Amino acid sequence: MEPWRTAIASADETHIWIRGHDIASLMRRASFADLLFLLHRCRLPTAGERRLLDAILVAVADHGAGAPSCAAARLVASGNRQSLSAAVAAGLLAIGEPHGGAGSASMQMIAAGVERARRDTLSYARVAEDTVEAAMADGRRLPGLGHRVHTVDPRVAVLFDMAREAGFPGDGAAFLRAVEEAARRRIKPLPINVDGALAAVLYDMGCPPPMAQFVFMIGRVAGLTAEVAEEYARERPMRIHVPVEYDGVPPGRAE
Amino acid sequence: MEPWRTAIASADETHIWIRGHDIASLMRRASFADLLFLLHRCRLPTAGERRLLDAILVAVADHGAGAPSCAAARLVASGNRQSLSAAVAAGLLAIGEPHGGAGSASMQMIAAGVERARRDTLSYARVAEDTVEAAMADGRRLPGLGHRVHTVDPRVAVLFDMAREAGFPGDGAAFLRAVEEAARRRIKPLPINVDGALAAVLYDMGCPPPMAQFVFMIGRVAGLTAEVAEEYARERPMRIHVPVEYDGVPPGRAE
Amino acid sequence: MEPWRTAIASADETHIWIRGHDIASLMRRASFADLLFLLHRCRLPTAGERRLLDAILVAVADHGAGAPSCAAARLVASGNRQSLSAAVAAGLLAIGEPHGGAGSASMQMIAAGVERARRDTLSYARVAEDTVEAAMADGRRLPGLGHRVHTVDPRVAVLFDMAREAGFPGDGAAFLRAVEEAARRRIKPLPINVDGALAAVLYDMGCPPPMAQFVFMIGRVAGLTAEVAEEYARERPMRIHVPVEYDGVPPGRAE
Amino acid sequence: MEPWRTAIASADETHIWIRGHDIASLMRRASFADLLFLLHRCRLPTAGERRLLDAILVAVADHGAGAPSCAAARLVASGNRQSLSAAVAAGLLAIGEPHGGAGSASMQMIAAGVERARRDTLSYARVAEDTVEAAMADGRRLPGLGHRVHTVDPRVAVLFDMAREAGFPGDGAAFLRAVEEAARRRIKPLPINVDGALAAVLYDMGCPPPMAQFVFMIGRVAGLTAEVAEEYARERPMRIHVPVEYDGVPPGRAE
Repeated sequence: MEPWRTAIASADETHIWIRGHDIASLMRRASFADLLFLLHRCRLPTAGERRLLDAILVAVADHGAGAPSCAAARLVASGNRQSLSAAVAAGLLAIGEPHGGAGSASMQMIAAGVERARRDTLSYARVAEDTVEAAMADGRRLPGLGHRVHTVDPRVAVLFDMAREAGFPGDGAAFLRAVEEAARRRIKPLPINVDGALAAVLYDMGCPPPMAQFVFMIGRVAGLTAEVAEEYARERPMRIHVPVEYDGVPPGRAE
Repeated sequence: MEPWRTAIASADETHIWIRGHDIASLMRRASFADLLFLLHRCRLPTAGERRLLDAILVAVADHGAGAPSCAAARLVASGNRQSLSAAVAAGLLAIGEPHGGAGSASMQMIAAGVERARRDTLSYARVAEDTVEAAMADGRRLPGLGHRVHTVDPRVAVLFDMAREAGFPGDGAAFLRAVEEAARRRIKPLPINVDGALAAVLYDMGCPPPMAQFVFMIGRVAGLTAEVAEEYARERPMRIHVPVEYDGVPPGRAE
Repeated sequence: MEPWRTAIASADETHIWIRGHDIASLMRRASFADLLFLLHRCRLPTAGERRLLDAILVAVADHGAGAPSCAAARLVASGNRQSLSAAVAAGLLAIGEPHGGAGSASMQMIAAGVERARRDTLSYARVAEDTVEAAMADGRRLPGLGHRVHTVDPRVAVLFDMAREAGFPGDGAAFLRAVEEAARRRIKPLPINVDGALAAVLYDMGCPPPMAQFVFMIGRVAGLTAEVAEEYARERPMRIHVPVEYDGVPPGRAE
Repeated sequence: MEPWRTAIASADETHIWIRGHDIASLMRRASFADLLFLLHRCRLPTAGERRLLDAILVAVADHGAGAPSCAAARLVASGNRQSLSAAVAAGLLAIGEPHGGAGSASMQMIAAGVERARRDTLSYARVAEDTVEAAMADGRRLPGLGHRVHTVDPRVAVLFDMAREAGFPGDGAAFLRAVEEAARRRIKPLPINVDGALAAVLYDMGCPPPMAQFVFMIGRVAGLTAEVAEEYARERPMRIHVPVEYDGVPPGRAE
């Protein structure tokens, strides 16, 4: 087999390098957020970038044992006590469109909107109006808006404030606020959720769309390990009985 | 990289062989149970072996949407609509010790018991008594006995009857019945469950212990695909809200 | 939590029913292919349907240890010896678009083509021509055509012959042959592969598109269990060294 | 269904709390390592604990595309382009005993050794000698020692130095060094690897054994996302051909 090509990590008998940086040096001076930024952006972050990345990871780490990802991890821990990895991996598998994956779609919507506003010298309000109308016409949801629990997602304002304090350009956040306003007028109040907020901030940091889902997964895996640890510590195997109501062909009537 | 060695499948530009059998020929004359037997036992099964293997696969395919494997698959389908594989794989991850994995442990217990009875010319009743006592002394469960729903697991008698009709030796089944009887006298009624029954039958077919979990996974994956298909067809994304009761440090009290 | 609704399986203390059929009765008279059909189509199959379903499951069960699904299962078994489920699940995760998932896309293409031919009373040759041109214009692959190993996939003719012998209508197969012919003239020889063949047959059996990927996963899980069993039996943990060539920032040059 | 009990996270319409801490406050002042510590240890870490936890996460994030976890993620990305989660989850599934899971076993060995030395007032050298002999007698590996690539794992000395600088007690590290020395004398040079080093440091931080595998998984998930991003960006689907050598029943000879 031909060797696989990679530009991420290399090693010899006594060294490991990440993107060309010696691991010993990174361990001494880099935080986990620094390393994550280095892995994906090929350089160490500024202080502002590090702070925002940490805030995003903290924001998405956990949201209660009943979130699909956390509940899937606990169900697997309930049935299979042989592998911590199996439970955590099952939790990750629950992440995608719509749970935790909306950030990537939101980044695409933001990128398209900001670019169009620039190209056609239109206001964000005007482009946001078109964005909302197009979604309504196609019966699509607006990615990054609305939440099934929160009327106001407490993580949104914090992220936007921190991004402003760090001096980020703010186009992503401004455009998403414009979409929120247009949606409120044309549909109903659909407050920006954490997927939307982190999408706007990552867009303003220059990241590509898949980064939104990667960052959600990385933050959430911390919460998943805690959920699995609690399931092992507090509950006995097979304790979960999901109640089911059968409404199919009556038992014994099929032949 | 050195080539990986395998004795399972090979292919050239116009052929595929499984354990040396041409795929075209297998497709015409082999059932799925035949192929499964061929893959693991390196020969095609007798009619009796095929019938038993089919009966086991049918027995474990599904047990309701609330079983840990089925519920995990549905939770993942609820959060992540991008991948059928992710949902089915999450269901499989819930299988292990104790859910669906007890069969392998049961096969080990059966093998040890039958072998000891032979070696020391003891009755199964006597060896089963010791087996139950040893488990009680160590606080271990008896793998393959007891069920959280069924007082009598309807699949057990059918499997044992079919094995007898097919002329299987029956030592595995006889020893497990002896363990069930000893457990009833020394602990409480702990009826043989489907994991125990398929373990006894696979032991009588000459299979090694991991086969019990493999067969459970293969049968269950059929049920998991149906559960995922139903979740997609009948339910909207993110519909599952697992109720949670927080009993930790009171909100706002930690600082 | 409200009970989950399901029309698949139900159970009481002494019974289990699948789609209303008693499990004891199914175990005695149904094969695995029968049960799979019952789970997805809500009735037991005809003899012809059973035979075709078995042939499809046999066709896709394994294709050598180097297929992405098989290799992923082996890598996981190489690193993690704690869980058979983890290794098999990782193999399933490798299935999607393009590996094993092309069948669903192929079924959609076939359904659209056959329907258009009927509606507009056009020949399959004519509609196939348009299908190929549209794919070329968009730079899309034709799902179900072409294979990286086989010039002639030996499984295709067998499936089509068996479907004809079983008296299936054959529109799906006929349309896909027309696409193959159009592709040969307009692009290059792109022989129908097993994903395309099973898609055509399942379409002719009246199944919806996701069934193609489900059936691929179910058949392949049999092969994955054999691959994992062989890895455990023949190889020591951590034996796999994938060769890697680093072509990124030179070690030590980043600062 | 009864509500699930949890002491990790809670939320109302406008708030989220982790272990009783308001998420908005955590986002402003906590790093990801802080949150991870809070999730598992129920309090925020000291500066020294945070620094060590960051160093461990950085140390294990990546080790090249050919490590089983990284290679499994790439294989899944190669076959299935529909789900980022599927690829990352497959990478996690490769983590366990022996790949990345040795840390938990190493923590158990360290805990048992340090405890016995205290209880029986024996030197670490003496207890380490017994530990090595017991492993030799049972044919067990010493968890946390030896590496297939590194003669000296560059991450070990850094972690131990940082732990000393942070003023950690150091019993775990001292005992593991004693085991390394005893192994060198009784078996062969088996240098402490990163699993052993993080196990020793986490033991000295008061963490329970599963924490070693959790921390490995969390750090590695950062690397896995980068590996998957690179596979999508640089390689076409299905590009991986693992070379296979068939050594089973000759094709066509089975009948």
